Amino acid sequence: MTKLTVQALEWTGSALKVLDQRQLPDTIAYDVYDDAAGVHDAIASMRVRGAPAIGIAAAYGVVLSAYRHYRDTPSQWQAKVAADMAFLAQSRPTAVNLFTALATMKTVLDKVSEQPLADLLACAKAIHADDVAANRRMGELGADLIGHAKGILTHCNTGALATGGYGTALGVIRSVRQRQDVAVFAGETRPWLQGARLTVWELAQEGIPVTLIADSAAAWLMQSGAVDWVIVGADRIAANGDTANKIGTYALAVLARQHQVKFMVVAPTTTIDWSIASGVAIDIEQRHARELLPACYHTPDSLVTAWNPVFDVTPAELITALVTERGVVMQPSLTTMEALQ
Amino acid sequence: MTKLTVQALEWTGSALKVLDQRQLPDTIAYDVYDDAAGVHDAIASMRVRGAPAIGIAAAYGVVLSAYRHYRDTPSQWQAKVAADMAFLAQSRPTAVNLFTALATMKTVLDKVSEQPLADLLACAKAIHADDVAANRRMGELGADLIGHAKGILTHCNTGALATGGYGTALGVIRSVRQRQDVAVFAGETRPWLQGARLTVWELAQEGIPVTLIADSAAAWLMQSGAVDWVIVGADRIAANGDTANKIGTYALAVLARQHQVKFMVVAPTTTIDWSIASGVAIDIEQRHARELLPACYHTPDSLVTAWNPVFDVTPAELITALVTERGVVMQPSLTTMEALQ
Repeated sequence: MTKLTVQALEWTGSALKVLDQRQLPDTIAYDVYDDAAGVHDAIASMRVRGAPAIGIAAAYGVVLSAYRHYRDTPSQWQAKVAADMAFLAQSRPTAVNLFTALATMKTVLDKVSEQPLADLLACAKAIHADDVAANRRMGELGADLIGHAKGILTHCNTGALATGGYGTALGVIRSVRQRQDVAVFAGETRPWLQGARLTVWELAQEGIPVTLIADSAAAWLMQSGAVDWVIVGADRIAANGDTANKIGTYALAVLARQHQVKFMVVAPTTTIDWSIASGVAIDIEQRHARELLPACYHTPDSLVTAWNPVFDVTPAELITALVTERGVVMQPSLTTMEALQ
Repeated sequence: MTKLTVQALEWTGSALKVLDQRQLPDTIAYDVYDDAAGVHDAIASMRVRGAPAIGIAAAYGVVLSAYRHYRDTPSQWQAKVAADMAFLAQSRPTAVNLFTALATMKTVLDKVSEQPLADLLACAKAIHADDVAANRRMGELGADLIGHAKGILTHCNTGALATGGYGTALGVIRSVRQRQDVAVFAGETRPWLQGARLTVWELAQEGIPVTLIADSAAAWLMQSGAVDWVIVGADRIAANGDTANKIGTYALAVLARQHQVKFMVVAPTTTIDWSIASGVAIDIEQRHARELLPACYHTPDSLVTAWNPVFDVTPAELITALVTERGVVMQPSLTTMEALQ
């Protein structure tokens, strides 16, 4: 088993230790949270990001909430935890893992138990461990598909930093690299530069060489023939396979199709939102214009504004393969996706 | 005639005043150059950028060279100017305007004249004035094509800052805005952020509202239906209409085709390199990895490198219209381009 050299989240026994990903790669700094409000802030401020990691952090946030309210207000602790859960649910809108993790924690909270705190902690730990196991399984399944690729392009960060450990798309890249040499390209992923700051850092920690490109150079890179696969993660997948992921993913999928490059989405089944038939129903987070605009335009009367959606939806028909821990779906659609249910 | 509120280059009578575009929008600073080496540096360092502006700057660089060597070494001044011209030609590799302007200046240098300095200055000023006149003509021709568009997306900076004044693609946007309201979107244009730093600044100077987007959001913007036209400039156009322009242009052209968005290239005929049959022959400038990489990877043994081509080539078949000062070519090809010769 490969050592996990990078960890976004760590449960200390009484608190959640969070690597502040906003400061990477320059500074490796951790924040320690002992209540749900802190975990909400860690997610909303993007200290922790990545759909699976957000779900895991929220689960530990529920544990911290339960520890506090069970101690401070034993008569109504469950109601207070439920309120904290509602607050945690508001930290980011797009990733379904957040809501899935909170729903799982809610079933434990609602259970009559002799040891509710221990049960909640066990559930959060299980969500965390299941995610790592799912990642490793997906890594192998994805690597099986790749065959002898010369080059892989990935987008955003979907590695250990974005998950419980190992990674989704980056997990596949790790698994491929354990089998063979392959050129790895990472898009820098504006506006937050998850590729430039996180993905290349994480790969370098693992000893995997990587070449950074501007997002807008991806088409030219594909045109050069250097890339056989684009591999990305997902923030939410509809029942038909339509996939919400970091802004720019949809562009890569269109460009990949145009250049006969294959397109793989790697995500645990917890990322699938069976309640929505297609990607049209996915709420796309718009972040503040300030993340794109030079400071001189941060005034309400500025003629210069920005449109800053941080996710987009890739239609299933552009996806060659969806890799989950339950198996691979080629050409995802409402029909082919049924195999995962 | 619209007032030019922004000027990248100004001839002072004895020197070339250059707006340092690297410092925009935070600082408006000028450098003054009185020799060819200085102008070479102004171009190579990207204080001045944009294919037409580079050509104009180089022409004034030749004037400055002639002034100096005619005074200091009258017996061999022409040979020294020719050497300076060779040096100026090495300042940037992709934009053909640089070489066209230098070739034009060379014909004047080679002429036996009573007043060579005055002739060279007149030639440089004519290159400058012709560029502005061409821009205004292209603005009108482009606006005629646009009709009642709701939205236009542009890339990089092709405005007064990139030309003698007014602009190519941005000139068309100015001309459209004089006729009707239209939503203007600008891609931020990594890695140098010409869109975020220059285009939105220049449009705001003119009172034109503009919305900045991450380059990778362009596909999602097109998918939303907000854009009818993509309008870009060019650094070099082959005889068949293949167009080298800022990295990311090719991606936009592929994405535009996929979304039934029209794609316009706006460039003076000086940008056309009739000596090359297709875009395959265009030398694409690769800039230093450092422009993309976080500082911690600027070491020779870093596992993290970058691929940083700053131009790409859009095949003519993806171009709806090429707008030049000599007229519009719809669906450019070797055959249709002949009308411009």
